[in-house]
Amino acid sequence: MSAFENLTTNRSTYVTHLECGLKGDRYEADVIQQLSKAGRPLLVKYDLQGLAANISKTELAQRPADLWRYREFLPVRKTENVVSLGESHTPLIRLSELEENSGQLIVKDEGRLPTGSFKARGLCMAVSMAKELGISKLAMPTNGNAGAALAAYASRAGMQSYVFCPEDTPEVNVREIAAQGAKVWRVNGLINDCGRIVGEGKAATGWFDFSTLKEPYRIEGKKTMGLELADQLGWNVPDVIFYPTGGGTGLIGMWKAFNELKTMGWLSGKLPRMVAVQATGCAPVVKAFEEGTRHAELWKDAHTVASGIRVPVAIGDFLILDAVRDSGGFATAVTDESIIRGLKEVSERTGLLLCPEGAATYAAWKQELVSGRITPKENCVLFNCASGLKYPLSEANDSIDCTQPLDYGLIG
Amino acid sequence: MSAFENLTTNRSTYVTHLECGLKGDRYEADVIQQLSKAGRPLLVKYDLQGLAANISKTELAQRPADLWRYREFLPVRKTENVVSLGESHTPLIRLSELEENSGQLIVKDEGRLPTGSFKARGLCMAVSMAKELGISKLAMPTNGNAGAALAAYASRAGMQSYVFCPEDTPEVNVREIAAQGAKVWRVNGLINDCGRIVGEGKAATGWFDFSTLKEPYRIEGKKTMGLELADQLGWNVPDVIFYPTGGGTGLIGMWKAFNELKTMGWLSGKLPRMVAVQATGCAPVVKAFEEGTRHAELWKDAHTVASGIRVPVAIGDFLILDAVRDSGGFATAVTDESIIRGLKEVSERTGLLLCPEGAATYAAWKQELVSGRITPKENCVLFNCASGLKYPLSEANDSIDCTQPLDYGLIG
Repeated sequence: MSAFENLTTNRSTYVTHLECGLKGDRYEADVIQQLSKAGRPLLVKYDLQGLAANISKTELAQRPADLWRYREFLPVRKTENVVSLGESHTPLIRLSELEENSGQLIVKDEGRLPTGSFKARGLCMAVSMAKELGISKLAMPTNGNAGAALAAYASRAGMQSYVFCPEDTPEVNVREIAAQGAKVWRVNGLINDCGRIVGEGKAATGWFDFSTLKEPYRIEGKKTMGLELADQLGWNVPDVIFYPTGGGTGLIGMWKAFNELKTMGWLSGKLPRMVAVQATGCAPVVKAFEEGTRHAELWKDAHTVASGIRVPVAIGDFLILDAVRDSGGFATAVTDESIIRGLKEVSERTGLLLCPEGAATYAAWKQELVSGRITPKENCVLFNCASGLKYPLSEANDSIDCTQPLDYGLIG
Repeated sequence: MSAFENLTTNRSTYVTHLECGLKGDRYEADVIQQLSKAGRPLLVKYDLQGLAANISKTELAQRPADLWRYREFLPVRKTENVVSLGESHTPLIRLSELEENSGQLIVKDEGRLPTGSFKARGLCMAVSMAKELGISKLAMPTNGNAGAALAAYASRAGMQSYVFCPEDTPEVNVREIAAQGAKVWRVNGLINDCGRIVGEGKAATGWFDFSTLKEPYRIEGKKTMGLELADQLGWNVPDVIFYPTGGGTGLIGMWKAFNELKTMGWLSGKLPRMVAVQATGCAPVVKAFEEGTRHAELWKDAHTVASGIRVPVAIGDFLILDAVRDSGGFATAVTDESIIRGLKEVSERTGLLLCPEGAATYAAWKQELVSGRITPKENCVLFNCASGLKYPLSEANDSIDCTQPLDYGLIG
């Protein structure tokens, strides 16, 4: 059955080694790795010349349109270790009705992935690699969506998972995590407190720390956002990408994808300007960008309605900042008011229900068109990282007594 | 940009006329139509020979993998009238871990569509045709998901929409409908009471009645489930399809698709056995199937946790029953207990969170393997019609005080 071709066909792999994202020192592939000696994320390195020589755009186009189409660009060696719940390509949706004196406004709707968020990309890859490396017990701190994806893929792979969320994580996320087979706890703290619990518990419990960027493969999963976007645009890229930035794995992954494609000769010309979008109540990357530093300080009293980007400290901060600067992009913060207003405006005018983090990218796009940091000629892609259904919506309480005669003048 | 190719390329259309589903009398295409003179649904007819002569499987395969890939099989004449929110192909997910003495068990996850349900297929088509025919004010009774899809596509098309739900419709659905720009009311009754409000209000309000099957184009949208499934399987079909059946538009539409493909010579051999799945608390089609009648009586005191299939009377009952019988399938009912148990079993063991209606198809598959109405050799596709995130999930209340020393023995 051809729909399963990407999951059942053996394909060549091209991983050569891993490398510290900060220092560049080399680590062995195909064995369990977490952080580098410098305590920083490891990046997966490929034989890109070999890859370019052995695969063509035409061949890729004939495969099913899902994440595993890009198998040769990914770290999983053995087909039997691929853990999948149907990672179909997510659509690009052009919102021409909101374009005013601007270039194209396109949303990539990542809410269509398994478990309703882009976390599925990172976690299907990390869980597949955990399977390949013989790991069977996984733990993670999460603001909600990553935990849901971990729970689902761990259950799919027959593994146990342990998930810790801040206590104000939306109810739907916590229930989803439990329903999908994980053990889940609410913690009276923020995501870094949850992360501490995971880190400290490793020795006693034997679980593997699946925190953002503490294992090398979530980046590779998120990299497929870049591969897929370029593929969907006929191996072209937009002028600007607005990305809601918490841990930043996706921004780092996409930038890695674009550079790998450029090295292979599959992309030419200017790469997209990468814009890291944060909330004014939690903007460590924006502060570091503006101050010209390579690392971001811990943000105190972090708060925002967009809980997915409420990440006070990111271990890959320098990789985010490098990508933003190297690409000619920038980091910017938007207020909660503009996020809420943006969410309402987009859903009412276009029917597309964004998540708050997705709405933050829209708010940033509007703000930066006014500021002039993006020009009316630039075509922009916003990443809506999760389904709007995963978040509480405002009330809608009109009701009708159908046992009484109705006054249609009041209804229609 | 190639991702938008299906939405921007003019393509030939092949609609010749409409026909009463019951009597077969002929109606004009390209003008506003609702029910036939017999008060029954109208079916869209195509020049299938012309279609087969002018399009090839190879050509289709080169287009983006979305619903509009099948434009020539669909009624919209002018490209400018296509209303879309990114209807990407939904994945087929094989659940081998649940196959025991059975053929392949495959879920088609329709929860990935815009607004999180298969209703998007019917509504994007019906709203596109409303645009083509100059209609601008739409009204509908709904158990939730259809109303959400109507709201989204109407807003996308710049139209007004009016939605009426039973008062116990899940909160998330009602809020979603409102957020996406519709006017929505809760009604102290069932969906047929809501339908009565829409029908009676037409004259006073000038709205167009978008009730299930009361306009001819939702079936054509749902038909794409059949086209897409066959396409994904390399223009083959499974042995059996389990379909959660309320109004039945999808079952009718898929059966229409398979027969159109057979007439065109694109499918050969046996078509799938169509199984209509209902809940024991609302099973009018099952009763009619067992009693050998062509129409179903109104089901009194309808109740089930699977609110999407809580439809006491369906105007297309005879089309559902015809498809089930002609295909060598059957209609079957499952208890709420087996639906709840099925939902839990699938999500915990595979990570795939079904909606209750999708879980009903899984419960039916298990039940009918035992009964022998399906054999261990038959490969089956279950339709999960909506995202599990649209439904209330059971609670998950474990919590941890991170300000105190933790006992990891109790956690891990």
